[in-house]
Amino acid sequence: MIRPRRPGPSTRVRVRELVDAQVRVREDRLATEEPLEVRLAWPQHPAQRVAVTMRTPGHDFELAAGFLYGEGMLGPAAPIHTVVYCTDHTLTPEQEFNVVTVELEAPPLHDPAQRYAGPAAAASACGVCGKESIDDVLATCALHPTTAWDGLTVPAAVLHSLPGQLREQQRVFDSTGGLHAAGLFESDGTPVVVREDIGRHNAVDKVVGARLLAGSSPGLPLLCVSGRIGFEIVQKAVAAGVGVLAAVGAPSSLAVALAADAGLCTVGFLRDHRFVVYTAPERVAG
Amino acid sequence: MIRPRRPGPSTRVRVRELVDAQVRVREDRLATEEPLEVRLAWPQHPAQRVAVTMRTPGHDFELAAGFLYGEGMLGPAAPIHTVVYCTDHTLTPEQEFNVVTVELEAPPLHDPAQRYAGPAAAASACGVCGKESIDDVLATCALHPTTAWDGLTVPAAVLHSLPGQLREQQRVFDSTGGLHAAGLFESDGTPVVVREDIGRHNAVDKVVGARLLAGSSPGLPLLCVSGRIGFEIVQKAVAAGVGVLAAVGAPSSLAVALAADAGLCTVGFLRDHRFVVYTAPERVAG
Repeated sequence: MIRPRRPGPSTRVRVRELVDAQVRVREDRLATEEPLEVRLAWPQHPAQRVAVTMRTPGHDFELAAGFLYGEGMLGPAAPIHTVVYCTDHTLTPEQEFNVVTVELEAPPLHDPAQRYAGPAAAASACGVCGKESIDDVLATCALHPTTAWDGLTVPAAVLHSLPGQLREQQRVFDSTGGLHAAGLFESDGTPVVVREDIGRHNAVDKVVGARLLAGSSPGLPLLCVSGRIGFEIVQKAVAAGVGVLAAVGAPSSLAVALAADAGLCTVGFLRDHRFVVYTAPERVAG
Repeated sequence: MIRPRRPGPSTRVRVRELVDAQVRVREDRLATEEPLEVRLAWPQHPAQRVAVTMRTPGHDFELAAGFLYGEGMLGPAAPIHTVVYCTDHTLTPEQEFNVVTVELEAPPLHDPAQRYAGPAAAASACGVCGKESIDDVLATCALHPTTAWDGLTVPAAVLHSLPGQLREQQRVFDSTGGLHAAGLFESDGTPVVVREDIGRHNAVDKVVGARLLAGSSPGLPLLCVSGRIGFEIVQKAVAAGVGVLAAVGAPSSLAVALAADAGLCTVGFLRDHRFVVYTAPERVAG
């Protein structure tokens, strides 16, 4: 398999397109997918691998930082010291930009050797990764109760504006049609940070990580995602401390159950002048 | 979080819907999402956990069998003896139907303790899970080269019929709008098995597992999926030994690179009288 040394977010290929039985050979662009290995280090501790996720290259440091934040590894008591691509001489040229090390200033809030001690191993930056058992999966939630947002009331018009704003900033999607997006917004709908990725969990990790690396809190009023709301997206939203999680797609049963427990407002099917509020409806005006 | 003892594929909730500023309180159905823990056992070896995936309950035995097949754990030399829900007395009532053990008649083709030896841990039945490194991710491919299909030529009309056939059999999607589907088809478009799941990797594992548990080969001419084609979907298609992988959505760069290496025909954007062929175009007529 030939892979470029430092791939961009999209990759050029030659394809055959059939439109109404007419064949056309043309160039096409695909969303780039490459593995990213996330390593964690802290004073007197060498870097250790905690996850491998398939992601679209770009904003890799944000992805690594956001992923570890969602996993409860870092925070004010364990801030980030540096984030770097690995220069390990055992890596092949293709791997060089696919391995990122996050070094903390203090030991992580959970020992990764314990957290990821199971016989199984991590992927897709998905929040279930590395959990020893089902109980562990359910236990890593609701670290940051969202009661801070008790006075928040978002107008319906603001919610309706979010998917279009995501879409406007999705440059790679335009050329490939294959990416998810996530965005953090102020309560009046002003976009703060939007990121895209082939993995919907990764897109959320990137917006959270972007805030962290800028020295800001990821706990903004609104988080909007282009796809569906699964359990792990709610986990990440709760960990980030947002007030409302809005999605173009449908939520799952466990996502709604967790959001209800954590006091997170969830909105789904945000399209065509319509949406559905599943939890904390007092945060949506109307 | 209140979770039913044995959840069905969809879950009833009360929601507030806003359509053009009109509020309506009504009942809704969500796609059920629950963790499934897959355990593997063989003669003289107690069951050990190999993965936790978030899935839609239903066809759990197929999911477990198909996942392990895609991971290269089982095959003719290590056939399945039994698949059972765990009756471990340490499990809570909610966990009872969320833990499945696959017992083989012989040791697995790979030692799971080695395969999943990393510090990180498995999720989303996604093929990257449990791999020690990026090289391991790329190495577990192309076990079943698809040269067996060298004479196969599928008419465009057959390809166009597949998404509609998937959709027709998606009963839970109809009520929830939140599920992916996968289906295996004969070369004339006759459906053999269709399954749905909140996770697109899981839907593929279920159709593969359905064939295995019926004592049949999963290597049918056509595999169609409702979403996008990521690297891990190609991994599973190659492991299953199908001839053509068709999708309603876009493929990724690494998916196309792997399919090219493995000789798998890939078709994307299968909708609106159009599709794009990325690899092995000789298998598509026209």
